[in-house]
Amino acid sequence: MNTKIKKTEEVLENFYKNLKFPSHLAQATTYSLMAGGKRIRPLLFLSMLEAYKIELKPAHFEVAAALEMIHTGSLIHDDLPAMDNDDYRRGKWTNHKKFDEATAILAGDSLFLDPYFVLASCDLPAQNVVSLVKELAYASGSFGMVAGQILDMDCEKKELNRSEIEEIHQLKTGRMLTFPFVAAGILANVSETELIQLRQIGEKLGLAFQIRDDILDVTRSFAELGKTPGKDIIEEKSTYVSLLGLEAAKTQLLCLLTEVKNALSVLTIVNQSDILLLVKNLEQI
Amino acid sequence: MNTKIKKTEEVLENFYKNLKFPSHLAQATTYSLMAGGKRIRPLLFLSMLEAYKIELKPAHFEVAAALEMIHTGSLIHDDLPAMDNDDYRRGKWTNHKKFDEATAILAGDSLFLDPYFVLASCDLPAQNVVSLVKELAYASGSFGMVAGQILDMDCEKKELNRSEIEEIHQLKTGRMLTFPFVAAGILANVSETELIQLRQIGEKLGLAFQIRDDILDVTRSFAELGKTPGKDIIEEKSTYVSLLGLEAAKTQLLCLLTEVKNALSVLTIVNQSDILLLVKNLEQI
Repeated sequence: MNTKIKKTEEVLENFYKNLKFPSHLAQATTYSLMAGGKRIRPLLFLSMLEAYKIELKPAHFEVAAALEMIHTGSLIHDDLPAMDNDDYRRGKWTNHKKFDEATAILAGDSLFLDPYFVLASCDLPAQNVVSLVKELAYASGSFGMVAGQILDMDCEKKELNRSEIEEIHQLKTGRMLTFPFVAAGILANVSETELIQLRQIGEKLGLAFQIRDDILDVTRSFAELGKTPGKDIIEEKSTYVSLLGLEAAKTQLLCLLTEVKNALSVLTIVNQSDILLLVKNLEQI
Repeated sequence: MNTKIKKTEEVLENFYKNLKFPSHLAQATTYSLMAGGKRIRPLLFLSMLEAYKIELKPAHFEVAAALEMIHTGSLIHDDLPAMDNDDYRRGKWTNHKKFDEATAILAGDSLFLDPYFVLASCDLPAQNVVSLVKELAYASGSFGMVAGQILDMDCEKKELNRSEIEEIHQLKTGRMLTFPFVAAGILANVSETELIQLRQIGEKLGLAFQIRDDILDVTRSFAELGKTPGKDIIEEKSTYVSLLGLEAAKTQLLCLLTEVKNALSVLTIVNQSDILLLVKNLEQI
C-alpha cells in the first residue's frame, strides 16, 4: 500500500513543484494536497488494477493523482466560510484559514481544472483517456459531487427520509468512490456487464463510506478526526445516525461492506488481497 | 455569426435543461451562461474552423460551448466577494447577488468540471478529443487563467512594469483566447509550425483584448459596460492605460490588431471573412 501512496504523492507534489506556476498558487494547492489525506480513492483504483493483474505504470499513478486532485479541490471549497465554514481539516488549518478566501477559491479551481491536463497527458490509448475524462467529469460535476454538495446544503435543517439522504450521499460521496472501480474496469477492458457491476460496487462502498463518516462524527474526538466533531448535530443535518440511531447505522455499515465483498467475488479479478484489505479497514469504527 | 451563437447557446441551454440536476444548481449555471455574453471565444473558434473550410457539425458547437462554460465559471468566481466583489455583470446581478455565495461557488465549480464531460462526449476522433482536453485544461488551470487571476490579485496596489502587466494578461485572458485558434488548428490537422503561429495569434489577440478592456473601463459608462466602470482606478490596478496613458494604449491596441491580421494572412486558411470581422470589431473603442 505504501508504495502506491508514495508514487501517487510523488505525482501530486511534482506537478506543482516542477512547473512555472505563481508560487502562491502552488503553495496553496500543495498545502492541501499534502495535508495527510488517506488516499482512499487512489488506493482503491490502484488496488483494483492489481486485482485485474495489470502491472502498475506511471500513467496509472497519474490517473490516481488526477482523482485525488479533484477530491482535494472539493474539500477546499467545502470548507469555505460560505459553505461548511470549517477551520480545521486533517488536524491542520483549512486552506482559507492558512492562506485567504480568494486563494482557497482559486486553489480549488486549479485542482478541478489541472487534473484534466494530467489525464490528457497520460501515456494511455486515446480511447481510454477519453473514457476516463468522461467518467471523472461525470463523477465530479453536475452529475455527481457538486450536485450532491448543493443538495446537502439545501437540506440543512430539513428532516430528510432515508431515500433522500441516500440520494445526496450517492451524488456527493458515491460518484467519486465509483470512479476507481469503473476506471480500473475501463483500463482492464472488461465487459459492459462487468462495468455495471463495478459501478454498483462503487455506489455501495460510497454509501458505506458516508455512513461511516456519519458514525465517526459522533463517536470520535477532534484529535482522532482531525476536524471538528459533532458538526452534523450543530448544523441539524439529517444523517444515517440521526435517522436510524448509532447501533443500527453500524449494522447497516457492516451489511453494506459484506455486500461489497460478495460483489467483488463475482468479478473477473484474480488478486483480491489489497482491495479486500481496504474494505476491511472501513469496518473499523 | 448569429447562427453560430444560436447553435452554441442551444448546447449550453440544453445541457442544463435536459438532465436530472438539482434545479437550484441548473438555475444558477444557466443564469450566468445565458446572461448575454458576446460569445467571443466560441465565435473565434467556429470562424477559424470555417476559415479552414471545415463544415460545422454539432461536435464543433459542443467544443465551443465547453469553452464558454469555463469562461463563464471564471466570471462567476471572479465576481465573488472574496475576489473582485462585483454586484453587476452584463447589466444583471452577479451570480452570488442573484443566488448566494455558496451557490455561486458551486455553479462555478460545475462550469469548470462539466465541460470535460461535454468534450469527452463529442463525436470527434479520440486523439482529437484528448488534444482538446489537454489544450483547454492548459488554457484554464494553473498554466493559464487561474494563474493569471491569482497574479492579478497579488498585484493590486502594486506598481507593475509593462512586462509584468503583459505576463498577467497573457495568463488571465490570453490563454483562453488562444484556445479557439489552437483548437481549430488541431481539428484542421495543420502542421506543428502552423499550430505555433496560431498560438502566437491567440496570444496577441488576448493582449489586444485586455488592452481594450482597460480602455473601456475608463471610457465607458455603466450602461455601456453592463458592469461598474472605473474599478481599475478604485482598486489601484496597474493597467495599460495607467502605464501608457489612454492615447498610447489605443495606438497599441490598433498595432496589435494589425499584427493579428497580418499573421492570419500567412496561414493556410481560405475563408477569412468572419474571423476578420471579429478582429475588426475589436478596433471599435
